Amino acid sequence: MPPLPDAAAVADLLARATDGDRAALARLLSWVERGGDGAREVARAAFPKAGGAHTVGITGAPGAGKSTLTNALCGQVRAAGEQVAVLAIDPSSPFTGGAILGDRVRMGDHTLDEGVFIRSMATRGHLGGLSLATPEAARVLDAVGYRWVVVETVGVGQVEVDIAGAADTTVVVVNPGWGDAVQANKAGLMEIADLFVINKADRVGTAETRRDLESMLALGAGHGTEGWQPPAIVETVATTGDGVADLWAAVQEHRDRSVASGERDRRRSDRARTELREVVEAWVREQAAAKCAGDAWDGAVAQVLNGTADPWAAAAALLRDQD
Amino acid sequence: MPPLPDAAAVADLLARATDGDRAALARLLSWVERGGDGAREVARAAFPKAGGAHTVGITGAPGAGKSTLTNALCGQVRAAGEQVAVLAIDPSSPFTGGAILGDRVRMGDHTLDEGVFIRSMATRGHLGGLSLATPEAARVLDAVGYRWVVVETVGVGQVEVDIAGAADTTVVVVNPGWGDAVQANKAGLMEIADLFVINKADRVGTAETRRDLESMLALGAGHGTEGWQPPAIVETVATTGDGVADLWAAVQEHRDRSVASGERDRRRSDRARTELREVVEAWVREQAAAKCAGDAWDGAVAQVLNGTADPWAAAAALLRDQD
Repeated sequence: MPPLPDAAAVADLLARATDGDRAALARLLSWVERGGDGAREVARAAFPKAGGAHTVGITGAPGAGKSTLTNALCGQVRAAGEQVAVLAIDPSSPFTGGAILGDRVRMGDHTLDEGVFIRSMATRGHLGGLSLATPEAARVLDAVGYRWVVVETVGVGQVEVDIAGAADTTVVVVNPGWGDAVQANKAGLMEIADLFVINKADRVGTAETRRDLESMLALGAGHGTEGWQPPAIVETVATTGDGVADLWAAVQEHRDRSVASGERDRRRSDRARTELREVVEAWVREQAAAKCAGDAWDGAVAQVLNGTADPWAAAAALLRDQD
Repeated sequence: MPPLPDAAAVADLLARATDGDRAALARLLSWVERGGDGAREVARAAFPKAGGAHTVGITGAPGAGKSTLTNALCGQVRAAGEQVAVLAIDPSSPFTGGAILGDRVRMGDHTLDEGVFIRSMATRGHLGGLSLATPEAARVLDAVGYRWVVVETVGVGQVEVDIAGAADTTVVVVNPGWGDAVQANKAGLMEIADLFVINKADRVGTAETRRDLESMLALGAGHGTEGWQPPAIVETVATTGDGVADLWAAVQEHRDRSVASGERDRRRSDRARTELREVVEAWVREQAAAKCAGDAWDGAVAQVLNGTADPWAAAAALLRDQD
């Protein structure tokens, strides 16, 4: 692990990344993944430069075709003359060698395109986990100039669903077939969706899946409240590109609408609040870990073991002494 | 929720529970489940009186027959003239009405026996979760005089496996049939077992399951190290009582051996250390939650929103101000 970057080194990396140096950008993102002081230094530098990007979350069950769809969507963004960065969240483990390779292969269309930056994200020690590391990484991509940041997660597990739902526009991908929409509902995906994609829409069951989605939306929380607009439902075949232009149009439409209504700002405020709470918790957790070592800690353990203090009394003394 | 108990009220409840007042004991355990100051007061009072009980963890896959086996084991303990308390851990939710009823029905043999105390445990707000509430509850049962405390958990989920593994003697229940031992291995149950029970041993596959267990044990971590003794494997049919006397003998044998070798004390030291760490973490989490409210918190959120502080800087100021 390289030495911790100081403020000047981070500013230099950020300037180079803004000029298109992808290696510099990759190093910044590695610092974010590692967490700790390095991640904080990067967050500090990126924060004032960020805010211009629109983030798009893409989620759905494994095998729904999210990566192929993300790939195709990147093509649309590039055709519109804009730059796009993709964060592919790998929930499996800190060991993402395979995943990085897999994503590179699947997203092969854009590996030589300087206007597309693709990164498989993992947390290598970030105390806040993916739910803190992902917005920090997205902020770096935003700060260096990408106007579109796509965050792709598997819609399995609360952390991944929450991460996808924390985007400015959240796209939920389902497939035709009995029960897929119902599964999405169970996984909490109905609540976070700004847009639905029925991918693999050349298969049987597309019309039924659309009806399932529509009837679940009609029962949903937002229905009937003033100004509420149901999420659009787009049909695609990501492998052929069919419908991907519709998806791109729907994403832009949602962005324009949420900016105009103030909804995007409201959500960003909520997210800032959530992120600050998570940062406080991560920091306090770090302090707690620091208290569970050293002489005072050994003394507290000894007191519990010889029966002179119960665990709560020993902990209280430990926290009091070191405050 | 009744008012918080003071030290005198807790001492009174503890004295009554020690005299056999089951309602007083139930109230103490409710305080433990609720966490917070009430749980701390109970922990403080119970701690100096505890240490005499031997705890037995019983775990295994759902449907392995753990409750029936626990029930039958209680009969053995009673026949030996000793008192026993059972904590049935319900991992499902804070709403345990159904589970309590279910356990009462299944453990019907002992509902009128004053020498057996059965309690379904859940956490109703305990910050440390089941992994802190369970040892605290066991300590209360120990403090009021039960010499045997059985903790029954479903061996699914890391928390439940860890809780069962934190007993003085851990019993892992499997059933005959291809793959059951392999599943237990995957779930991390091989590592925590001091004793294996092949329950439903009147079914086909018992011999194969024993061989599977033995070969996995031969590959295990402890094998070959000096003084290591492989866990005993006991065959039972809990519904008829077959083999339950063997289980009781094996439990006593493990207790005697681990007391004589000092292994029980070593484990208790390790657990005290782990528990103290969890108490510190729970307390610090409580402090973090307290910092995410009030004027200073609103100010920090406002700074992030208007861009004058990044989340880490705002959190640092918040933590500094309130220390």
